[in-house]
Amino acid sequence: MAEIRPILRWRAGSSGERADDELAHEEPLEIRVRGRAVSVTMRTPDHDDELAAGFLATEGMIRRREDVLRIEPCERNENGNLVNVVLAPDVPVDFERLTRHVFASSSCGLCGKATIDAVRGQFAAITSDVVVDAHTLLSLPERMRGAQSTFDRTGGLHAAAIFTVDGELLVLREDVGRHNAVDKVVGHALLNEELPLDRHVLMVSGRTSFEILQKALAARIPVVAAVSAPSTLAADFARDSGQTLVGFLRGERMNVYAHERRVRFA
Amino acid sequence: MAEIRPILRWRAGSSGERADDELAHEEPLEIRVRGRAVSVTMRTPDHDDELAAGFLATEGMIRRREDVLRIEPCERNENGNLVNVVLAPDVPVDFERLTRHVFASSSCGLCGKATIDAVRGQFAAITSDVVVDAHTLLSLPERMRGAQSTFDRTGGLHAAAIFTVDGELLVLREDVGRHNAVDKVVGHALLNEELPLDRHVLMVSGRTSFEILQKALAARIPVVAAVSAPSTLAADFARDSGQTLVGFLRGERMNVYAHERRVRFA
Repeated sequence: MAEIRPILRWRAGSSGERADDELAHEEPLEIRVRGRAVSVTMRTPDHDDELAAGFLATEGMIRRREDVLRIEPCERNENGNLVNVVLAPDVPVDFERLTRHVFASSSCGLCGKATIDAVRGQFAAITSDVVVDAHTLLSLPERMRGAQSTFDRTGGLHAAAIFTVDGELLVLREDVGRHNAVDKVVGHALLNEELPLDRHVLMVSGRTSFEILQKALAARIPVVAAVSAPSTLAADFARDSGQTLVGFLRGERMNVYAHERRVRFA
Repeated sequence: MAEIRPILRWRAGSSGERADDELAHEEPLEIRVRGRAVSVTMRTPDHDDELAAGFLATEGMIRRREDVLRIEPCERNENGNLVNVVLAPDVPVDFERLTRHVFASSSCGLCGKATIDAVRGQFAAITSDVVVDAHTLLSLPERMRGAQSTFDRTGGLHAAAIFTVDGELLVLREDVGRHNAVDKVVGHALLNEELPLDRHVLMVSGRTSFEILQKALAARIPVVAAVSAPSTLAADFARDSGQTLVGFLRGERMNVYAHERRVRFA
């Protein structure tokens, strides 16, 4: 997930030194379903099958392992930057809905509040009464950092991880795109028949946006925690979707933006 | 650009306190050209006219202030989340190319190296022999931070700024999306007839991806500097496009990933 590039490393007072530096690998990936492109994303080439499965799962297109017959690289592309997802014949594919977030036709109207509500309405709110200990949450950033393979070297990757509410790490993935990292961990869960993730915590290394909360909701994840801040829409979406949202999870502290009832502080 | 939300702030050993917290504002924006949607992006609602102009400029669709007759909110949308860009009648609009990055048809082939090259070939490489002093570069993160209005409060926004090579700040914009922040500063320059930015530095608060370098190239910016790491594709693109790329610009140090000849270290 990292590649070497020659750089000049300079510090004030020095004349600089040549060095080899590891950078986060970034390349485009096209995801196809039934012969049609449904997404093109800049991603870190790794676990492309999980990325494709997670994208389709978080868009609400597939729900179970059996919905996917196989995920294969497209042979016509010499770079391996194209995957074809072969779905079971009985899985209905609504191409119009699937590409809504990627490109809107002039009548799409994504930009209205009505459509944000429609996205939310696509998945039922989470009512789970699962509880996670505050000190378990405090331990997650360090555990995530320990499991990250590339971040400390490149500083250029977002990470997403699924933990159980007891703090056990299920899977961690890294990517140049934060939404891709989330798609990968959800895709991993789907391919390993671990959905729904209804007794789990999604931990992300950076900020939380609307998109992250939407993807967590699709996977039925009741608690989303992040090292940095959420946006307004992320906080509002979490509140309306019954999701517990934690931010600024650092050292001995955290902020809770929605549904604090799932966090045991005592 | 920030809104208040009620939160629970907790620190180990305490029982937590209720507080009002400022979050980065996030809402979708649809950009239309000649009645057709060409982009939908999650953005921070601020300077939407600059965002739309910058998006069209960095996609190579418009090049001069005169290409834009006016930029108007669409009245049919009650949220103000839709802008219509009215172009001069003689500006050719290639809708297929414009939407390439947003959604690829199955024959698009963005995912091949050939198409990355095509993106690069759309804009000539930069050959400018402008030079920026290393100590001027070192001063930019602090100057950018000083000009940021929202970051310190929300921690949720990316910033992009245009400086002259002498370190004078031209414009700074913040957004939940890093590419949006870059579109806004380029759009500002276009609307104020300051393009090309060929004696300038683009400074970004986070990481640099392929997309950031592409947008800088469209605006003819010879030097791109960032507080964090670039990806492989960003470094490769900068090298092939004649762009100077600086990363990890922090305190008294920096890394130079491409075309160090434009940085005076003495």
